[in-house]
Amino acid sequence: MSAAPDVVRSAYVQLAVTDLAASRWFWVDMLGMHVQHEDEDALYLRGSDELTHHSVVLRAAPVAALDHLAYRVRAPEDVDRAERFFAERGCPVRRVPAGTGTRGVGDAVRVVDPLGVPVEFFHDIARGERLIQRYDLHRGAQIARLDHYNICTPDIPAAYEYYRSLGFGCSETIEGEHELYAAWMFRKPTVHDVALTHGPGPYLHHIGMATHESHQVLHTADIFGALGKEHHIERGPGRHGVSNAFYVYLRDPDGHRVEVYTSDYFTGDPDYETHRWNVHDDRRRDFWGNAVIESWYKEASPVHDLDGRLQPIAEGNLDESSIKVGADGLGIVKPS
Amino acid sequence: MSAAPDVVRSAYVQLAVTDLAASRWFWVDMLGMHVQHEDEDALYLRGSDELTHHSVVLRAAPVAALDHLAYRVRAPEDVDRAERFFAERGCPVRRVPAGTGTRGVGDAVRVVDPLGVPVEFFHDIARGERLIQRYDLHRGAQIARLDHYNICTPDIPAAYEYYRSLGFGCSETIEGEHELYAAWMFRKPTVHDVALTHGPGPYLHHIGMATHESHQVLHTADIFGALGKEHHIERGPGRHGVSNAFYVYLRDPDGHRVEVYTSDYFTGDPDYETHRWNVHDDRRRDFWGNAVIESWYKEASPVHDLDGRLQPIAEGNLDESSIKVGADGLGIVKPS
Amino acid sequence: MSAAPDVVRSAYVQLAVTDLAASRWFWVDMLGMHVQHEDEDALYLRGSDELTHHSVVLRAAPVAALDHLAYRVRAPEDVDRAERFFAERGCPVRRVPAGTGTRGVGDAVRVVDPLGVPVEFFHDIARGERLIQRYDLHRGAQIARLDHYNICTPDIPAAYEYYRSLGFGCSETIEGEHELYAAWMFRKPTVHDVALTHGPGPYLHHIGMATHESHQVLHTADIFGALGKEHHIERGPGRHGVSNAFYVYLRDPDGHRVEVYTSDYFTGDPDYETHRWNVHDDRRRDFWGNAVIESWYKEASPVHDLDGRLQPIAEGNLDESSIKVGADGLGIVKPS
Amino acid sequence: MSAAPDVVRSAYVQLAVTDLAASRWFWVDMLGMHVQHEDEDALYLRGSDELTHHSVVLRAAPVAALDHLAYRVRAPEDVDRAERFFAERGCPVRRVPAGTGTRGVGDAVRVVDPLGVPVEFFHDIARGERLIQRYDLHRGAQIARLDHYNICTPDIPAAYEYYRSLGFGCSETIEGEHELYAAWMFRKPTVHDVALTHGPGPYLHHIGMATHESHQVLHTADIFGALGKEHHIERGPGRHGVSNAFYVYLRDPDGHRVEVYTSDYFTGDPDYETHRWNVHDDRRRDFWGNAVIESWYKEASPVHDLDGRLQPIAEGNLDESSIKVGADGLGIVKPS
Repeated sequence: MSAAPDVVRSAYVQLAVTDLAASRWFWVDMLGMHVQHEDEDALYLRGSDELTHHSVVLRAAPVAALDHLAYRVRAPEDVDRAERFFAERGCPVRRVPAGTGTRGVGDAVRVVDPLGVPVEFFHDIARGERLIQRYDLHRGAQIARLDHYNICTPDIPAAYEYYRSLGFGCSETIEGEHELYAAWMFRKPTVHDVALTHGPGPYLHHIGMATHESHQVLHTADIFGALGKEHHIERGPGRHGVSNAFYVYLRDPDGHRVEVYTSDYFTGDPDYETHRWNVHDDRRRDFWGNAVIESWYKEASPVHDLDGRLQPIAEGNLDESSIKVGADGLGIVKPS
Repeated sequence: MSAAPDVVRSAYVQLAVTDLAASRWFWVDMLGMHVQHEDEDALYLRGSDELTHHSVVLRAAPVAALDHLAYRVRAPEDVDRAERFFAERGCPVRRVPAGTGTRGVGDAVRVVDPLGVPVEFFHDIARGERLIQRYDLHRGAQIARLDHYNICTPDIPAAYEYYRSLGFGCSETIEGEHELYAAWMFRKPTVHDVALTHGPGPYLHHIGMATHESHQVLHTADIFGALGKEHHIERGPGRHGVSNAFYVYLRDPDGHRVEVYTSDYFTGDPDYETHRWNVHDDRRRDFWGNAVIESWYKEASPVHDLDGRLQPIAEGNLDESSIKVGADGLGIVKPS
Repeated sequence: MSAAPDVVRSAYVQLAVTDLAASRWFWVDMLGMHVQHEDEDALYLRGSDELTHHSVVLRAAPVAALDHLAYRVRAPEDVDRAERFFAERGCPVRRVPAGTGTRGVGDAVRVVDPLGVPVEFFHDIARGERLIQRYDLHRGAQIARLDHYNICTPDIPAAYEYYRSLGFGCSETIEGEHELYAAWMFRKPTVHDVALTHGPGPYLHHIGMATHESHQVLHTADIFGALGKEHHIERGPGRHGVSNAFYVYLRDPDGHRVEVYTSDYFTGDPDYETHRWNVHDDRRRDFWGNAVIESWYKEASPVHDLDGRLQPIAEGNLDESSIKVGADGLGIVKPS
Repeated sequence: MSAAPDVVRSAYVQLAVTDLAASRWFWVDMLGMHVQHEDEDALYLRGSDELTHHSVVLRAAPVAALDHLAYRVRAPEDVDRAERFFAERGCPVRRVPAGTGTRGVGDAVRVVDPLGVPVEFFHDIARGERLIQRYDLHRGAQIARLDHYNICTPDIPAAYEYYRSLGFGCSETIEGEHELYAAWMFRKPTVHDVALTHGPGPYLHHIGMATHESHQVLHTADIFGALGKEHHIERGPGRHGVSNAFYVYLRDPDGHRVEVYTSDYFTGDPDYETHRWNVHDDRRRDFWGNAVIESWYKEASPVHDLDGRLQPIAEGNLDESSIKVGADGLGIVKPS
């Protein structure tokens, strides 16, 4: 088999949204993301720490879904490697030459990965102006950067093996005596670039956007409350057991879930050992033992194939007679 | 009628607890309160900003309950005023000469107030060493001071009138079209020294302890999670609509509820206008719209009479056919 | 002698400024104060927690100076009391009927107090919309409210006695063996409504504006740095020994000094004991022992008399052969 | 020439200290580092996020100095690569078999690098218990992990080329029109693992220890002030222009400088562009324009050779007639 492409990090997500103006309010006015480019069809946004063209693309469409998520690779050749890697695995693969795909992105390849998720691999991307110290422009949630994706998929051991084959490490898991319920996997040395959680899929459960400090997470919730828009707050703020991050989950106007997330830890040592949570440890999903709202388990964003059609959903394969398994290992994710 | 005593502030609470060692772990090791005095029968504790002998007294007893809460009055004569004020209202009144009551407290009077709650009024109290800037001794929740009490009582308009007659202002309320569900009342110019919330009573719903910043509230929750003691976290952290404070509610080893609370606002202007929340505004109890756990509505600490017997409970008097009314205006408080 | 007026709190400051547009940038865009009213001649501003018309008035004028500072009194009659109180002391006194003085303020009296400082006493003031929970409108420094004034005056014992006669308490002092170098005095139960510091005077050393948490003080400094306007940052951020507050000192476009200030402590107990700092304790001016920049000692805003003429300056009266005494007890304040 | 070893990150520093008890107070009681091992001769410490045996070793010795700093390499073979890499460059090289060097560390090689700095390369290291979520054990400065070293050296372009040859990227620099004054260089994708700053050398200017949030930096300063030990605070707290981090510089009982440091940014993209500061931009050393205390420029820790003798010092080679150049590009570092 061919070598895997050298993935640097989770780089951007492209979402189909049904009302660009409503999305702009949520992502720009409330989350404080910077508009890199804007036209009738799409918004290209990035966080204050990001030096590349975008980390979130919102594309106007009749139905809300995930267009694709994207990984940046280390060298131009890694785009070719990605093409071969997925072709050999029988995945749908499509080359997207520079100028024909997402604005700002160079030569890329798009695949439907073994989980059924549309994924782009690219190396070249236009730069964005350095805003790290433009504190005067940091507003709302003060999002610094995209941190990770969270994917629902019915066969976690298979998903884990697939991502291992792509060169990802595993920082944490939720496990039963003989079952793997969820896995947090990374290329950049943080807790994750992608989390894999058991449930019907493929679904995009959420994307995680990083801020620098916890008070920014609290302020995020406060500005939604201030405007009587607290229904956009789905869960939290709270502390995750897994990852140790402080979070709040929001739903955008199309129901796409966004986690505003701060503070995980370094995982880049060569002998980093996976930290394994028992599925019965109440703190794995909320370190403070708070209950998780049902919608967080039951709802997620459908995903597109390479032609923009919704991918069909497969059910989970674990025996759930005793343990209900969902997005973080307990509960059941249903099509929304 | 005689003049009301000039109340300065909510000053201390004395709780009957069943296991002093367990209480010490919770209040000293976890909340970080400073031990002013300790013997076989009781713990005398105070926050880092407090310059008087104690704000929390934990007394060993066979059954957990509120012994009494206490207001400090401006002058020694106000103790006499309190005695006359309550005697004229037909309340049980007992003079407690210095040296016969709670350690550190001078001449006092104890009453069962019209709500059925045991309350002490005192002026003299021993000092405590200034620890405001002893940051090296600030640990755990880093409690700065006692902020307020929260009382469950079945007749809020009556309770409101009683506290008005004691000279308290009203910062905020929860109201229906014709009903008063809850009132936040103050002498010191913060949101409250006491909150009155509808439900069977008399009960002590909780005491509120102030910290300086939100990260201290988060750290409070984190240290309970760290030790696998997250069941002591009952609700939150969250933002209150009423008061605007950031909070977490804990239960001590006897089930006494403690709110760790930060950041309200100045209410001392002579024409301060009560801020009225509609009982149907979802943000009044949690500004972020998060649901409130049932136990927070249904459980509270029983209170003693002047002889240490549990006070009987009266049910609420509102027609609750359409709205269920509880500790913050929705839900039902039941004897725990 | 007549009774002193019952002062509630430091309420607002009116500053003569030379360029309203420049002032607007500083106070509104950077500090985040809310514009209550604005015309060709003046800006009326308030913090997010303030429920009255303004706490800062910026009046266009050819020369920068303090027009007056203002105390709110408890009852309309206290305005009359103020008039008599200062008339008996031989101070210049002028009645300012509602509609003839500062916009939004009712019937008032203005005096030149015994320190040579122009001070207004008023009771009635128009309300401002409640913005406490309009987090979406909180920007820049996120100023919550005016906290205090700081006055330079050559005779601190005399100034202390004058403010005592006005009913102020004293939270903290800086003292030598036989000298009083500075005093922090209050009516609302915080560390101060006014600080008196030794040096040539009368000068307005600064006004203190409160935020809720330290990260807002840091963000204040960051936004000035972001725009290359760091020369507006004069001192700090730092921790005060006196008051224990976390601060940053800014200079507005006219050189008026503003302290962004967070977190002091409750001083409202009837037997609160003044906390005395020794003038040789290095931590009194900066709890971390950092040096104070010279301009902070040497520069301050001149003040007007009742007719808008600059008040003459008197030198200090302490023997400074061994200790140099300035705005916080060490150093020398010179006319700027 | 042989390939460079694959360096993962700055991993630990070993300091010679003259009073272990005094060092323990500073590093354990105040900074909150966890004691992994302790005997008569040394203390082995790590931060709460660190999963390896130590990041700071304090060795009792008659004279304070840097014993060595250490980089972890990706594979055991990289230790051999390091040996060849430095031997070919004519550097002193010594193999340190497991069990003969620093406790907990496996097979290693120590070199005196081209800058004259003693550096160890190792792969194997014993593990430490996971304390990331043991919030109950997080005290004092709440140090999470070692972040970087800062080295004074007289020839920055040469030092830059050497570290480039070791595979380090360069996140930021301070430059004049034709001079390179300082460079921040990294292997892990943060701003730096090592900073190179012009001045006489070799000296260890400081080690940087990371915390998660700014309030922990403030608390660090507060606990020193609380104990009257504010002379250990040398500079800050403040915001760096370079790196954007919030910092405070402390001096340990031997004068070793420690930076408590929070919040930089991701530098791991393959086309990350060095951010170049002009030596005349006042914000490069302090984003708020505050002056830097002279000792920060003039004092630093001497370093050992492989036999524990102090390395001789070479002066700088830049023409400093117009610009004085020091630890961050302005000022002069002198032997302390």
